[in-house]
Amino acid sequence: MKIHHIGIAVGSLDVAQPVFEKMLGKPPDSEEVVEKQKVRVAMFQLGESRIELLEATSEDSALARSIAKRGQGLHHIALAVEDLAGTLRELENAGVRLIDPEPRRGAGNELVAFLHPAGTAGVLIELVEEK
Amino acid sequence: MKIHHIGIAVGSLDVAQPVFEKMLGKPPDSEEVVEKQKVRVAMFQLGESRIELLEATSEDSALARSIAKRGQGLHHIALAVEDLAGTLRELENAGVRLIDPEPRRGAGNELVAFLHPAGTAGVLIELVEEK
Repeated sequence: MKIHHIGIAVGSLDVAQPVFEKMLGKPPDSEEVVEKQKVRVAMFQLGESRIELLEATSEDSALARSIAKRGQGLHHIALAVEDLAGTLRELENAGVRLIDPEPRRGAGNELVAFLHPAGTAGVLIELVEEK
Repeated sequence: MKIHHIGIAVGSLDVAQPVFEKMLGKPPDSEEVVEKQKVRVAMFQLGESRIELLEATSEDSALARSIAKRGQGLHHIALAVEDLAGTLRELENAGVRLIDPEPRRGAGNELVAFLHPAGTAGVLIELVEEK
């Protein structure tokens, strides 16, 4: 298991991205708009993980509501797992609360599922299947 | 550059640690009390990074105040850099706000410095020197 990415909610990519470029010493490795989730993403690869800066493209997105409620900052972490469906069954049997009981397609068409932060010390955790 | 660790503030290790053990499939790789910062830490190595669960050992610690104000959850991220003093000078010259203008000794006697979250989209970022 490894850290797949860290998701950071930003009010404005125009403001936040230049700071992360200075800190990480490079421009984003890729940029993407995920229409279904109404977010614009700037991804910085860092070793085996990446940092994703997430800007809402619409006020009625989950991300915009999160920023309105809790402000900018660390939003979620994603862990890479080999067998997502199997991992979800194991966690469910162990009593861990799931948001997505079954894998679904996320950004880049990867199989993903979110765990409920109420069961994980307030941390929103995404699992990403990576063979 | 790589992600050194993700710091998660937890109200109780007794509650949070078993959930992370189930999710990560193992007990912590190490446990430590950092007296100076008044925190108890459970560290889970994940590939080249690790997840650190942080519990306050005193109500008058910075961590206890953070949990009282913002609740449990993602607290900070740490990035490994090769030359911390040089990186701090570069960031300062680029206008990035620093909490620690000079490297100081952190957990495990490593050289660390924190950047100010006001300049980094609300994210508390620690830099750790790792040769």
